[in-house]
Amino acid sequence: MSKFVTNAWYLGAWSSEIGEENLLSRRILDLPIVFFRKRDGSPAALIDRCSHKLAPLSLGKKIGDEVQCGYHGLQFDCTGHCTKVPSQNQIPPTANIRAFPVIERYGAIWIWMGDAAFADETKLIRLEHYGEEGWGIVTGQYIRFDCNYLNITDNLVDPAHTTYVHAATIGSPEGSEVPVKVEQTDDYVLAYRWIKNVPPVPLARKMGNFSENTDRFQYYYLYLPSISCVDFGTMEAGLEPTEENKNTGLRSFSYNFLTPETSDRTHYFWLHIRNYKTGDAEADKDVERLMTATFLEDADILAAVQLQQAETGVREHTKLAIDNAPARVRRLTERMIQAEAPI
Amino acid sequence: MSKFVTNAWYLGAWSSEIGEENLLSRRILDLPIVFFRKRDGSPAALIDRCSHKLAPLSLGKKIGDEVQCGYHGLQFDCTGHCTKVPSQNQIPPTANIRAFPVIERYGAIWIWMGDAAFADETKLIRLEHYGEEGWGIVTGQYIRFDCNYLNITDNLVDPAHTTYVHAATIGSPEGSEVPVKVEQTDDYVLAYRWIKNVPPVPLARKMGNFSENTDRFQYYYLYLPSISCVDFGTMEAGLEPTEENKNTGLRSFSYNFLTPETSDRTHYFWLHIRNYKTGDAEADKDVERLMTATFLEDADILAAVQLQQAETGVREHTKLAIDNAPARVRRLTERMIQAEAPI
Amino acid sequence: MSKFVTNAWYLGAWSSEIGEENLLSRRILDLPIVFFRKRDGSPAALIDRCSHKLAPLSLGKKIGDEVQCGYHGLQFDCTGHCTKVPSQNQIPPTANIRAFPVIERYGAIWIWMGDAAFADETKLIRLEHYGEEGWGIVTGQYIRFDCNYLNITDNLVDPAHTTYVHAATIGSPEGSEVPVKVEQTDDYVLAYRWIKNVPPVPLARKMGNFSENTDRFQYYYLYLPSISCVDFGTMEAGLEPTEENKNTGLRSFSYNFLTPETSDRTHYFWLHIRNYKTGDAEADKDVERLMTATFLEDADILAAVQLQQAETGVREHTKLAIDNAPARVRRLTERMIQAEAPI
Repeated sequence: MSKFVTNAWYLGAWSSEIGEENLLSRRILDLPIVFFRKRDGSPAALIDRCSHKLAPLSLGKKIGDEVQCGYHGLQFDCTGHCTKVPSQNQIPPTANIRAFPVIERYGAIWIWMGDAAFADETKLIRLEHYGEEGWGIVTGQYIRFDCNYLNITDNLVDPAHTTYVHAATIGSPEGSEVPVKVEQTDDYVLAYRWIKNVPPVPLARKMGNFSENTDRFQYYYLYLPSISCVDFGTMEAGLEPTEENKNTGLRSFSYNFLTPETSDRTHYFWLHIRNYKTGDAEADKDVERLMTATFLEDADILAAVQLQQAETGVREHTKLAIDNAPARVRRLTERMIQAEAPI
Repeated sequence: MSKFVTNAWYLGAWSSEIGEENLLSRRILDLPIVFFRKRDGSPAALIDRCSHKLAPLSLGKKIGDEVQCGYHGLQFDCTGHCTKVPSQNQIPPTANIRAFPVIERYGAIWIWMGDAAFADETKLIRLEHYGEEGWGIVTGQYIRFDCNYLNITDNLVDPAHTTYVHAATIGSPEGSEVPVKVEQTDDYVLAYRWIKNVPPVPLARKMGNFSENTDRFQYYYLYLPSISCVDFGTMEAGLEPTEENKNTGLRSFSYNFLTPETSDRTHYFWLHIRNYKTGDAEADKDVERLMTATFLEDADILAAVQLQQAETGVREHTKLAIDNAPARVRRLTERMIQAEAPI
Repeated sequence: MSKFVTNAWYLGAWSSEIGEENLLSRRILDLPIVFFRKRDGSPAALIDRCSHKLAPLSLGKKIGDEVQCGYHGLQFDCTGHCTKVPSQNQIPPTANIRAFPVIERYGAIWIWMGDAAFADETKLIRLEHYGEEGWGIVTGQYIRFDCNYLNITDNLVDPAHTTYVHAATIGSPEGSEVPVKVEQTDDYVLAYRWIKNVPPVPLARKMGNFSENTDRFQYYYLYLPSISCVDFGTMEAGLEPTEENKNTGLRSFSYNFLTPETSDRTHYFWLHIRNYKTGDAEADKDVERLMTATFLEDADILAAVQLQQAETGVREHTKLAIDNAPARVRRLTERMIQAEAPI
């Protein structure tokens, strides 16, 4: 049985990574993929192996809308169809290779690794307030994690680790005892908490112009199988928690797109949307620095955890209350993988 | 069956490696260990894996006499008892982890990797003349060997290799044909030889003030499973070989403490005790340099031997007379390992 | 069953690699070999493992015509006979080690890895025009390929790859559609083509002084199991293709000697013989640079192919017409390996 959900849109590359001429090679769900663009700019993705002797096509070059293998010159179009074999007229059907559905949105190329028949664009996640007036974006970031993607999803619905792993960045001891509520649907697991009627933190005071006490909220969404959205906000204390009211204060959506590279390595793409200091390049840089430092803290501890798990064959030795949301994510993911397995 | 004797005191770390705040991680008998000190200075050792998700505790920090995991803040005392789990009051018994008996002596932390019920302090080796008036010490040295510890014990009861491996350092062709006698008890294997009535070597002439010919002795003790003591001396020729007479000339005890890291890596700690030029920092440096150069010669050849053994699955192809003492060490060690195995 | 043909002369080292005193260690057909010279200059080759504890003999030193192990001083003559064991008079027969037939010719040491009874000097390849008046040599080159030797022999009888892999060096689009003929004997597979009655290429025009159109020939010989000779030439158009006429124009023999290191690494030795600009050091340098650049292009693509093959367990997914000669080489090599296998 596969270790991955294949019928899902994964972020394969930032749009800026694929220019007019280059061929981008990237391993996704343990398969080598080559990304490129046709002359009209639209993206394409093929298995990064020639059908002849398995040379990586990414070592070849683009010829019009096609990719030419750098070994013997076989050519493939964006559907994986082999259109040319040097020195012979007839092209054997075994020369065709696998192509993958891709779409471009939100400054990224999204790839569907499973059954192409199910590659429905409407299944792509919708990013809140992306590109809207009054909202700014820090986009296009990437970190590689040396661990299984589920060790990362654990963290992304687990506020408990922030006090310890992120003591030097975003963690704070206060609030660590405020209980976390957990909900789930077929699409996501949500862990969230409200810290009500407290003075604004210094940053919020400075940027939000709050006169009185504030209510703070933290919503950790994990869209299955592996896209995280962390919705943080600070608003005047006592307001009804409607979407509209939430946007009256300071609010940010931190998106993390996990794309498994192998079973023990993960591509971690992220972008950040906020409703304050928009268009402020210095503030953008601050967010980028803080987020990068924070995610590297995760990457360090999770790489160490991965090594211990690999050595012992044990993933966790004792279960704790804080594992509620992570355990749900794992359970639902497991169910999705099983649903894809041949009967 | 284990490849190691577990019921033994192994040198885990030099005392100087563990300060007030740091957590020292070291793999011993293929287990990750974290060493630290309590506030009263006494040492402690735990398995270096949190009971929750197996994060190395050495990535966390000390809180009073306890270790706090850097992932979710679980806390453990020096007995391995879990004393705190964030966000929950009840601590499951599965949260406890393994602690290891340790004692501090001779400037080192000694760890007992086997059944704690047998961790008797009196079983710790006694170092000859350590700290005594008239005897000086070069202490606190460490080299990692990329080979199984038994390949090193082979060398440490084998005078025959010194002529070839140590030609550039301590080896000499003379004496290479003087036969070696071998004895054994339950505690040690001893290979030794006397070179009688010969002129002192230049170094001995200079330092020992010998008027006449000398008797030279070399005793290679291997205390099972893996502590070596090399007792070298030069004395006036013809004296009775009593302990007292042996100390009238030049004498040194070179101790080598082997602590298996894995089955193909070994921590090699050593210290050196001598009755000449005591308190002479320059002479100390000379000993340190000579010993380090000598042991690196061993490390080089043994790493090459280890690779060939691993490739072929063969440890030795032909048995020679010089293998007498090494073979005894291996046989006795094997017997100790078997005695520990569950029936 | 072995993955290699053992009953063959392999190029083990360039003569210049083995001086009077040094011991050269090199892995050949997945065995460690130590090469050295006796005092009369004649070469010798032994397994690079002492019979005692398997220490590499190449870490020892030469004593007269023998090799002394650097661990305990065992000595071996060039037949693998153990002549000395320190501290004992009787030498057990198990102390002897394997020796390999070697001969020195063409500036190289050739080694026979199979049954010594078949090590017939007449089976060594004869190099065309080597050392003859009017012919110059670029000799003594070496590149390591990170792939199985059969992936390299594929290339060496496959003109089709040159257009793509060697676009920056020796490849040219013209002629890529001229069909290749293939012949085979028990000794070699030959792929060749003539490009008739075409203007000389710029280099040929400059060096060959051709007045009219030329005929160009390319003969790719693969002497089994793994020596390649590429015979290239340009001559006046319309001449009979006799050996004599072929030598009237520009002609070169490019020899490539593949010696498997392991199943996924290959020693690639090469030399180059030509009948133009002989004795011209600058021209020699040009050939060396061009050939090195060309073979590194092969090494790059083949290392990538090897990784894909290793990952998938598939060597080729679809068969093409251009695989004719490579497939014959593989078939004949397989037959040679099977013929060596014990019944």
